[in-house]
Amino acid sequence: MTQLNSLDFDPNKLTLTWADGSSSQFHAVWLRDNVLEEDARHKNGQRLFDWSELPRDFSMKSAEVDGDTIKINFNAEDRQSSYPIEWLKTYAYDNQAPEKSYEIWGKDLDLSLIYHDYKEVKKGGQAMCDWLKSVRKYGFGIIQNVPQEEGTVLNILNSFGFVRETNYGKLFEVRTEENPNNLAFTPLGLNVHTDNPYRDPVPGLQALHCLESNNDGGESVFVDGYNVAELLRQEEPIYFDLLSSYHANFRFCDGKADLKNRATVIGVDNFGHFTHILYNNRSAAPLNLPANVMEDYYIALLAYSDMLHREEVEVLFKLKQGELVLFDNERVLHGRKGFAGGKRHLQGSYADKDSLNSWINIWEAKQ
Amino acid sequence: MTQLNSLDFDPNKLTLTWADGSSSQFHAVWLRDNVLEEDARHKNGQRLFDWSELPRDFSMKSAEVDGDTIKINFNAEDRQSSYPIEWLKTYAYDNQAPEKSYEIWGKDLDLSLIYHDYKEVKKGGQAMCDWLKSVRKYGFGIIQNVPQEEGTVLNILNSFGFVRETNYGKLFEVRTEENPNNLAFTPLGLNVHTDNPYRDPVPGLQALHCLESNNDGGESVFVDGYNVAELLRQEEPIYFDLLSSYHANFRFCDGKADLKNRATVIGVDNFGHFTHILYNNRSAAPLNLPANVMEDYYIALLAYSDMLHREEVEVLFKLKQGELVLFDNERVLHGRKGFAGGKRHLQGSYADKDSLNSWINIWEAKQ
Repeated sequence: MTQLNSLDFDPNKLTLTWADGSSSQFHAVWLRDNVLEEDARHKNGQRLFDWSELPRDFSMKSAEVDGDTIKINFNAEDRQSSYPIEWLKTYAYDNQAPEKSYEIWGKDLDLSLIYHDYKEVKKGGQAMCDWLKSVRKYGFGIIQNVPQEEGTVLNILNSFGFVRETNYGKLFEVRTEENPNNLAFTPLGLNVHTDNPYRDPVPGLQALHCLESNNDGGESVFVDGYNVAELLRQEEPIYFDLLSSYHANFRFCDGKADLKNRATVIGVDNFGHFTHILYNNRSAAPLNLPANVMEDYYIALLAYSDMLHREEVEVLFKLKQGELVLFDNERVLHGRKGFAGGKRHLQGSYADKDSLNSWINIWEAKQ
Repeated sequence: MTQLNSLDFDPNKLTLTWADGSSSQFHAVWLRDNVLEEDARHKNGQRLFDWSELPRDFSMKSAEVDGDTIKINFNAEDRQSSYPIEWLKTYAYDNQAPEKSYEIWGKDLDLSLIYHDYKEVKKGGQAMCDWLKSVRKYGFGIIQNVPQEEGTVLNILNSFGFVRETNYGKLFEVRTEENPNNLAFTPLGLNVHTDNPYRDPVPGLQALHCLESNNDGGESVFVDGYNVAELLRQEEPIYFDLLSSYHANFRFCDGKADLKNRATVIGVDNFGHFTHILYNNRSAAPLNLPANVMEDYYIALLAYSDMLHREEVEVLFKLKQGELVLFDNERVLHGRKGFAGGKRHLQGSYADKDSLNSWINIWEAKQ
């Protein structure tokens, strides 16, 4: 039970002081917008009124504690609204940035947090939740002992969400091809990158399932783009501002598809939390920026690029036969060392992050 | 043929003056980044080097016109690079914001620009292109004389792109239900809104196919959210900054899915061009903003909300049996008047904008 020490009333805001001595402000307009009564909320939880229908005087006539709730009368309307104190505590916004869903990492990341077992995950219970949460928190999670059967990557994505079909199909094959339309399908090493920044929207999740790997080399390199963006913010705040303010161009054209997108390399919200990283030298199209910004922007981009290649930010591992990695494609950059000889065959597919988070939310609400 | 009047050389930038007297700057770093030679570009067009691999001295030793190209020697590397003058003109960035892909509209929109005919569109040629371009330019396009067969909406989306499957399925039915999990499935009027701001990513395109409509009322109301955002920017620039800077919360929870997203209501790039509008009173979740911003943010939100309901920004039409409307769900707000009696049955589905633009790009390149 949330304990309330005191309620300080002002017609335009309440100040609630909690048992631990901290306090939260709730403005009258916020309270009116969030009334919980049946005339304002459909039983499915959706708000029934539009903001344009609200009165323009939100001031409160009175507010009083009544058991576990606070009851409020507004001046402009003949309505009394009741708010559970617990609910107010949950949604308190004063000085509270929302909790970050992610934790940044560098080369010292404990990989035991990342590995999960197929037999457990496929049961769809806590092990599934743990796998998905490692993707939400660290940006990636690996399942071991996955059957080496083609198409399994689709079944696994469909177990919590929906496959994003693209011009590459529902899944794409990563193996050496004779006439590749993409460098991924050559044996060349690949610098760390995020996939498909040229799409609108960019795929939020990518899964890669290793069906065969008996070559030398070809190790995976993973880098937390949020970690490196944080380094840039600390070391070069002006560069950080450039990469998070100006939109870069991305493009992929193979004659059958001509995909273009414009977006910032670093996405950040008003609390300074990261929302995306898009970095792909291969599909970067000519920049179109104000001429007086161009040189500084390049200095910033080169600085970020150099930081992405610092040894301290890289995690290296070999994706073995029967392993599947699911990762946040708008956060974690992936690359690979070059390889020669032997066979290497992965199947990949894209999906979106909302389903992943929804799965976790629904599972945790049931526990 | 692009005509060049003069080339002004500086080791760090070229200034090209065109036949019309205008001039463009090209910085050395931009030129080096965009070299077009085979060692730098795979034949599929992808850049072969990473920015981290570039030298840090980009300065030029020389630049000279050679026929239709300009040849440049750089100081740090033993390379000569050649740029078609036509190509430089195309990608000139000095003082040039990229062309807007959209045109804003209010109630005087000429609806003849929006209507297209199924028989022509399904041939997949210029009529298809025209329909998709009306979606890109105005945010929506209607096809008439579509067969009133269930599932047709999926075939039409698949003719240029890929259906976005969600927890509502590949398609969703819009008709009155007994226990609706969403207000769309009641006969209530719906204020103008964009769909599913609670998804990450938000569906960029929505298609609604009218299979049956013999009720009174139920007219569609469409509003160009970009137009209203422009009004807000002109009339209340401080409000505009608030709605384009602070992230709002959106949520949908029906016990089977619990979808959450945080994003700005108005998205704008560094050129001031709009990138998205997310507005949905029904699925807005309690705002979490710094306390000293909360009241001003609400004033801004209410102002935008009021503007969205100005008669001058609304287009009204009745979606008839056999009509399908495809619209940009991150730009055009849609609503409907309430209806009573009769039957109304729509099938809807979501897709993404990149495929739509790709289809247009590929078609136009072939002409």
